[in-house]
Amino acid sequence: MMTGAAGLTDRQPLLLALDFGGSKHSAALLVPGQQTWLAQARIYSPPGRDAAYDQATMLRMARELLTTNPGNLVAIGVSFGGPVDARRGLVHLSYHVSGWDNTPLSEMLRAEFGVPVAVDNDGNVAALGEWRWGAGQGCGSLLYVTVSTGIGGGWVLGGRIYGGADGMAGEIGHVLVRPGGARCACGKRGCLEAEASGLAIARVAQERLAAEAGAGEMLRALAGGSPAVPTAEHVARAAERGDSLAAAVLEQAAAALGTGLGAAINLMNPERVVLGGGVTRSGARYWQTIRETARAHALPLTRVDIRPAGLADDAPLWGAAALAESVADQECDQHA
Amino acid sequence: MMTGAAGLTDRQPLLLALDFGGSKHSAALLVPGQQTWLAQARIYSPPGRDAAYDQATMLRMARELLTTNPGNLVAIGVSFGGPVDARRGLVHLSYHVSGWDNTPLSEMLRAEFGVPVAVDNDGNVAALGEWRWGAGQGCGSLLYVTVSTGIGGGWVLGGRIYGGADGMAGEIGHVLVRPGGARCACGKRGCLEAEASGLAIARVAQERLAAEAGAGEMLRALAGGSPAVPTAEHVARAAERGDSLAAAVLEQAAAALGTGLGAAINLMNPERVVLGGGVTRSGARYWQTIRETARAHALPLTRVDIRPAGLADDAPLWGAAALAESVADQECDQHA
Repeated sequence: MMTGAAGLTDRQPLLLALDFGGSKHSAALLVPGQQTWLAQARIYSPPGRDAAYDQATMLRMARELLTTNPGNLVAIGVSFGGPVDARRGLVHLSYHVSGWDNTPLSEMLRAEFGVPVAVDNDGNVAALGEWRWGAGQGCGSLLYVTVSTGIGGGWVLGGRIYGGADGMAGEIGHVLVRPGGARCACGKRGCLEAEASGLAIARVAQERLAAEAGAGEMLRALAGGSPAVPTAEHVARAAERGDSLAAAVLEQAAAALGTGLGAAINLMNPERVVLGGGVTRSGARYWQTIRETARAHALPLTRVDIRPAGLADDAPLWGAAALAESVADQECDQHA
Repeated sequence: MMTGAAGLTDRQPLLLALDFGGSKHSAALLVPGQQTWLAQARIYSPPGRDAAYDQATMLRMARELLTTNPGNLVAIGVSFGGPVDARRGLVHLSYHVSGWDNTPLSEMLRAEFGVPVAVDNDGNVAALGEWRWGAGQGCGSLLYVTVSTGIGGGWVLGGRIYGGADGMAGEIGHVLVRPGGARCACGKRGCLEAEASGLAIARVAQERLAAEAGAGEMLRALAGGSPAVPTAEHVARAAERGDSLAAAVLEQAAAALGTGLGAAINLMNPERVVLGGGVTRSGARYWQTIRETARAHALPLTRVDIRPAGLADDAPLWGAAALAESVADQECDQHA
């Protein structure tokens, strides 16, 4: 490695990607133009941690990565699991971790590392990741939806995150799909999240197992315990093995998701919809129902192109790298 | 007026705006930078007319306007009441007039007038009109919805029409608001259009008048006839005068509209929603219900700013002028 003032600018440029997730923190370094991480670190979060823990953990990981992989850090991109004011780089709050209210995350990281920082919420950032490196490449308009414990999403329009007026665009989880339906975490009833998320699938399965004594033998066996407490993954596995109760529960969730996607398609006519998150690994029948229901709800002239995510659970981290890339480009443009 | 080759380029520049509407054709000339039409013409359409009639009528109006108002035509913008491929300036079809299938309208007009032409569907064009000159001025993201016989809409994002992958974005009329609800013209049930359009309001009012012998006296009087055949306007007027049946019908339609808008707001978080069309002139209570219902469906951090249109029924024509303006600007950029 070269040293001295002239040498410093010749060192390889680096993008730092950070993902503040619900259950873990991830950090990674990318050399612009590369398709694989130069280095990556991940720490699973202890229960009951607060924002100060999150920030200290992330800073330690980032510093370690930069120490062991010398280079010229040019920009930082951040995915945050909660609502964010992306224009100001401000975290509004976290629904899971206390102490995040109105944290100027972008400013903190810029002060620490002295490079431009872009922050956005995980749905938006994952959408950007899928557009840049995953199943949405080349799409002029992309809706990304993650179906996991909850349901979130984001839009990439014209190659940029579309966050809306308050950074809240993409909240498809709170679109009404069944008036008077299940109670949602947001307080309303019949939201897509309350009908089709992993928690919703598990809840409906548990209710049906409790109510239908003879049914769902395979699901009971997989879920274990007495009474059985199934997860969405148990439901998907039991459905694939022919358990009719599990299949019906999954079918209902897939139809709800297709209904919500149909609404999004009529409203925005995206070139493509990409679905990620653990629940979307629920088999061919699940996907078929989603596509058929969305097609039935969408107007005939409107395309329905719904595909599995390409980056699996790493979409937010890859998206953070794409964010870093775009903020580095902007900086270059301004100084050109 | 100056004459000769040099003089020609000094003549005032003109934009031609054309609106192929369901019941009438309008044409108007605008001098760029002005806020009022230089000249305007309108012809109401006879029933049973076809595309050839539409085209001949519009061409005659346009030629007359240009003959009586000499100037230098620089661009044409067109609003068409039906699905359009805006990129290619191609009319897919009209739901009301035969013979429009796959008509290269942009090409026809360019051949006739020798200037650049932009064509888009009326929902998108009206949205652009409201953004440029109406109630959506200055908005980074705008949803325009017209509530009339049917329900249509359009998006303006970053100062440009967002038409989606197939030019179908903004079709909020076919978002599901009541599963198993009324049959829609599109074949589905419970679409917003089937629950909240002018035709839907009239239909529900008529059904209730037939079923409830003693109710809706004021509405019956306004609607006349025996049996009474109310319009949406009758319903709005009767509701304002205290007719409780009419008020209930209108309330239900407003709540359906608020529900659909809530879905759009959660998905796209627009800076503003502008509502136009005759049905939106249904009084303060109607507006209050729309706003309250949309607020109840939208996530707390998401703004709900719903306002009446500023251009009344002229939004498509003004939008066509804005389209002409933008295509003229593009042409200038290319030749600069």
